[in-house]
Amino acid sequence: MSEFSEWFHNILEEAEIIDTRYPIKGMHVWQPQGFKIRKYALSLLKEILDEDHEEVLFPMLIPEDELAKEAIHVKGFEEEVYWVTHGGLTPLNKKLALRPTSETAMYPMFALWVRSHTDLPMKFYQVVNTFRYETKHTRPLIRVREITTFKEAHTIHADSEGASQQVERAIEIYSSFFDQLGIPYVVTKRPEWDKFPGADYTMAFDTLLPDGKTLQIGTVHNLGQTFARTFDITYETAEGEHEYVYQTCYGLSDRVIASIIGIHGDSSGLNLPPAVAPYQIVIVPVLFKKTAQEVLDFCNQLKDKIKKAGLRVHLDDRDIRAGKKYYGWEMRGVPLRLEIGPRDIENKKMVVVRRDTLEKEIIDYNEETLINDLNNILGNITQNLKTKAWENFQDNIRPAETLEEAKNIITDEQGIVSFLWCGDESCGKEIEEYVNVDILGVKEEATEGKCIKCGKDARNVALLAKTY
Amino acid sequence: MSEFSEWFHNILEEAEIIDTRYPIKGMHVWQPQGFKIRKYALSLLKEILDEDHEEVLFPMLIPEDELAKEAIHVKGFEEEVYWVTHGGLTPLNKKLALRPTSETAMYPMFALWVRSHTDLPMKFYQVVNTFRYETKHTRPLIRVREITTFKEAHTIHADSEGASQQVERAIEIYSSFFDQLGIPYVVTKRPEWDKFPGADYTMAFDTLLPDGKTLQIGTVHNLGQTFARTFDITYETAEGEHEYVYQTCYGLSDRVIASIIGIHGDSSGLNLPPAVAPYQIVIVPVLFKKTAQEVLDFCNQLKDKIKKAGLRVHLDDRDIRAGKKYYGWEMRGVPLRLEIGPRDIENKKMVVVRRDTLEKEIIDYNEETLINDLNNILGNITQNLKTKAWENFQDNIRPAETLEEAKNIITDEQGIVSFLWCGDESCGKEIEEYVNVDILGVKEEATEGKCIKCGKDARNVALLAKTY
Repeated sequence: MSEFSEWFHNILEEAEIIDTRYPIKGMHVWQPQGFKIRKYALSLLKEILDEDHEEVLFPMLIPEDELAKEAIHVKGFEEEVYWVTHGGLTPLNKKLALRPTSETAMYPMFALWVRSHTDLPMKFYQVVNTFRYETKHTRPLIRVREITTFKEAHTIHADSEGASQQVERAIEIYSSFFDQLGIPYVVTKRPEWDKFPGADYTMAFDTLLPDGKTLQIGTVHNLGQTFARTFDITYETAEGEHEYVYQTCYGLSDRVIASIIGIHGDSSGLNLPPAVAPYQIVIVPVLFKKTAQEVLDFCNQLKDKIKKAGLRVHLDDRDIRAGKKYYGWEMRGVPLRLEIGPRDIENKKMVVVRRDTLEKEIIDYNEETLINDLNNILGNITQNLKTKAWENFQDNIRPAETLEEAKNIITDEQGIVSFLWCGDESCGKEIEEYVNVDILGVKEEATEGKCIKCGKDARNVALLAKTY
Repeated sequence: MSEFSEWFHNILEEAEIIDTRYPIKGMHVWQPQGFKIRKYALSLLKEILDEDHEEVLFPMLIPEDELAKEAIHVKGFEEEVYWVTHGGLTPLNKKLALRPTSETAMYPMFALWVRSHTDLPMKFYQVVNTFRYETKHTRPLIRVREITTFKEAHTIHADSEGASQQVERAIEIYSSFFDQLGIPYVVTKRPEWDKFPGADYTMAFDTLLPDGKTLQIGTVHNLGQTFARTFDITYETAEGEHEYVYQTCYGLSDRVIASIIGIHGDSSGLNLPPAVAPYQIVIVPVLFKKTAQEVLDFCNQLKDKIKKAGLRVHLDDRDIRAGKKYYGWEMRGVPLRLEIGPRDIENKKMVVVRRDTLEKEIIDYNEETLINDLNNILGNITQNLKTKAWENFQDNIRPAETLEEAKNIITDEQGIVSFLWCGDESCGKEIEEYVNVDILGVKEEATEGKCIKCGKDARNVALLAKTY
């Protein structure tokens, strides 16, 4: 187990995020603290999606014949699908798949729902559990057999432009979501051999974990008309013709939470962006016998005031050593700690400790501006987490001009290698084989250059990395 | 199909609540309108539960050996459990059950979580999909094979009193939830032969649908120490002894939504309590050529003002006949419709149409008090829906002094029959057989009386009804 793996596993346990002792490999329990982080992250995303997507909920089981209809698609999933074969003691006539993703659950219904060009575009999403019979080594939140929080969107368009524009829009949505969480990412167009089964092309978000491996944290697929033809999803044009629709789909998994934890965390434990922290502020009273009641009363009023302003605050009045409290709240990643003793009340001061810097500062306690002051500090924390994460991310993208150089970077420094690629599959496969890691995909166009493998003219700036 | 069945099925389709055309029997799709009702109902319940329960999320699959551990429990479910037997093309070593309910998923973990008496009580809940291989005739939201919104709470206590008090508390929680939705109910203690498999006793909520059949809409189980012994869930007392815990669990399903629709609805369609209505208010502008822009501008401002106050409002400015709009919004159950024309603006009036009474009223448009006025009307609608539903419910509980009388009531008038019962299982079964419907359970104690069957002294006021 790498150092990071060990840290990650320990913090999930110590901060009570996920209990991995559930008696099925790759399936885990969200504990109350973890569930709250999941809930707040989800509500950030829903707020964006709800602007122009409708939330729906499709059944978890998919009949074998529907799953099998789209041949390329089912081929991509056949080794990973869990099958229900019995109801009670009775064998089922038709096997039922636990959804690995919901195209084949939704699209037969879309064929019924889409009628006219005036219905389009249609944009749906759902948040569900999905299942993959992973044969690789499983890891909580990263490689699991039950994805508990699959956020999948599916859109339907009248023309090809509508679908490609929606791909761009989905990239904006996910970028804005990751930005709020301070998760850095790179968006690439996945190579042909690594696209979603059935898609015209796949755009993917990758981030980088502290062990130097990239983690795919979101994908956006342009499905073209592949599924429309398979499931016969057509609409009537203004002229009364029947045409196949164009579709996209895009999704995020539990890996969002893994990234928040893995990227911002440090040797003291979790380091949560305020937007998803179960408690954003913890108040620790400094108690001496004579003044204890007075300090507690003050802290209780302070708590009520902060709570009323809509911030998530906790007053830790347990009768244990202050040091133990500090350790516990730092480990759990509470962004801001207020320490308040009798002298502070007298002097109208507060001791403020930021989790992101672990720095202690004494600031004025001003009744009028209190909420504003706290919100400013929380805003700074959000910004600082993001800046630090992006700096580290960018420091770990290194250009290589030769295959040898690429290989050395991966071996010595890990992270991401950028290089020029002609785009040919044969070159791509040979590069992957030589460097012994995957091509993430093409990030952008260069003005000029030569393919790192064949030396021909190349315009694709592509990325290589050891991936999860 | 009964008249109600037909109405219910039609309104689910017409109002786009649930699509029943999904290609697996008993598994359905929540469409956007239905999903919103579900979402708002869920958030009412969560608000209550979040006060002192922690939300968690357990895996959907349960290993066969865990499910089988509690013999009485598994016996109650063995004919209804869906089994996963294959992962990809590989047969699994151990069959996995789709959870029919989560006792056997959660309690092995509770055995790890509970340590000391200071940990107790612990109260958890989760909102998940559960599965039952129903062999009876399925009905959307009422008898399904995938319950999509199972809200299950599980609590752990140090002593027997703690568990029985929690049963009372759960009854209060569910009562308060149903009260907010105006759903009438009766709470009974289920007969021994109808309690939850593994429970000491079961308390259940039943409501009444318009076809005269009762629908079980919530259950609360005192599990005593049965599962604690099976799963070895113990805690250390203050004296250092190890004792088994006491447990309760309680749950609600998609039937909550079926009740909202079935009980409040009428021949015009849905009739939604404001708390769960996707739109609480719809504004319909009355447009004439000359004044159209002025009226639209006014209505847009009105909409913004109402939206800003946190109400869910929609401006219907489609270019179709007003009558068609009215019909559509009434069918979808929007609680309040505002009709605004040029004369109304001039006279500072609004036409207000309440969905619950379908009555039209002209009220003053007063900028200052507008939101307050609307909230008052919405409050009246909530109250009126509840009052009407409870009146109808109580009118349909009829006392019977003889078995013959009970049978006649069930045959002629349907609804619920109350009667005195000695409590013996043999009498109970004979009563059920004679009247040919089920005993719901015991509602309360009478001061005196004789068993309707054996004539012995009886104190149990019990209820009989044809059930779903």
